[in-house]
Amino acid sequence: MKVEYINPFLSATINVIETMAMTKVTPGKPGLKQGNKSWGSVTGVIGLASAGLKGNAMVSFEEKAIVSIVGRMLGEEFHSVTKDVVDAVGEITNMIVGNAKREFSEKGYLFDMAIPIMLVGKDIEISQLTKGPTLSVPFSTDVGTFVVEANFSEK
Amino acid sequence: MKVEYINPFLSATINVIETMAMTKVTPGKPGLKQGNKSWGSVTGVIGLASAGLKGNAMVSFEEKAIVSIVGRMLGEEFHSVTKDVVDAVGEITNMIVGNAKREFSEKGYLFDMAIPIMLVGKDIEISQLTKGPTLSVPFSTDVGTFVVEANFSEK
Repeated sequence: MKVEYINPFLSATINVIETMAMTKVTPGKPGLKQGNKSWGSVTGVIGLASAGLKGNAMVSFEEKAIVSIVGRMLGEEFHSVTKDVVDAVGEITNMIVGNAKREFSEKGYLFDMAIPIMLVGKDIEISQLTKGPTLSVPFSTDVGTFVVEANFSEK
Repeated sequence: MKVEYINPFLSATINVIETMAMTKVTPGKPGLKQGNKSWGSVTGVIGLASAGLKGNAMVSFEEKAIVSIVGRMLGEEFHSVTKDVVDAVGEITNMIVGNAKREFSEKGYLFDMAIPIMLVGKDIEISQLTKGPTLSVPFSTDVGTFVVEANFSEK
């Protein structure tokens, strides 16, 4: 996966979380994902596919971050990872990748999006059937951190 | 998701496992997936996407089944879920869905495939951001059982 592929995810993530949850987001340094475990307590995964590109994008939140972010999105207070919180992770994943998709399409990279799946649990063993590395960007907020990971390649 | 969508997965599964692992496969009765946990010890998930269709397909194996099936595929003996076994689940998922894709395209349903992800662990909480039910088909072999699950819909 080319490093420049991460940029549309970066701007999309800031845009979606700041707009939906009125939460300031500060990106950290992009790096390569180490190991093959889910990073946070709730992880959204979405497949990307077209005749030219294929791969997956993931958004993984530590519990205190997602509980607060979804609370701000929905105007409710959450104290744990409920079904509403899990579904909101799917929606956030959809929005971030949908937002990035528009930026990719302007650069001539076209793909369609599958439906998000949501995994609940930290350190779930999850690997991808690809030789290329997975890029990972940490994001910090006033309520905690999350990461966006992406791995896709041209066919 | 329409019930007739399951048929291409059924014939593809029998074809791939019988061809690749020389293992006779008997399908059980298709039904709706209950709950939101991973069924077996190793699960392959692949996103399906196009302008007209989107969703996910999963293939989930109990440990003794996949260890034997991969052993027969690779001509080696495995006693536990190694990295080779996990990667083989990704390959099997790719092959089953690729095989089904051809049958779908003959019926006019076109989609592209993302890259498989593989989850290791039974009873991992996994849900999908969709209101429609997930169809599930159990398959039995002389070395144990596995299930194929699919959830996709027209946009």
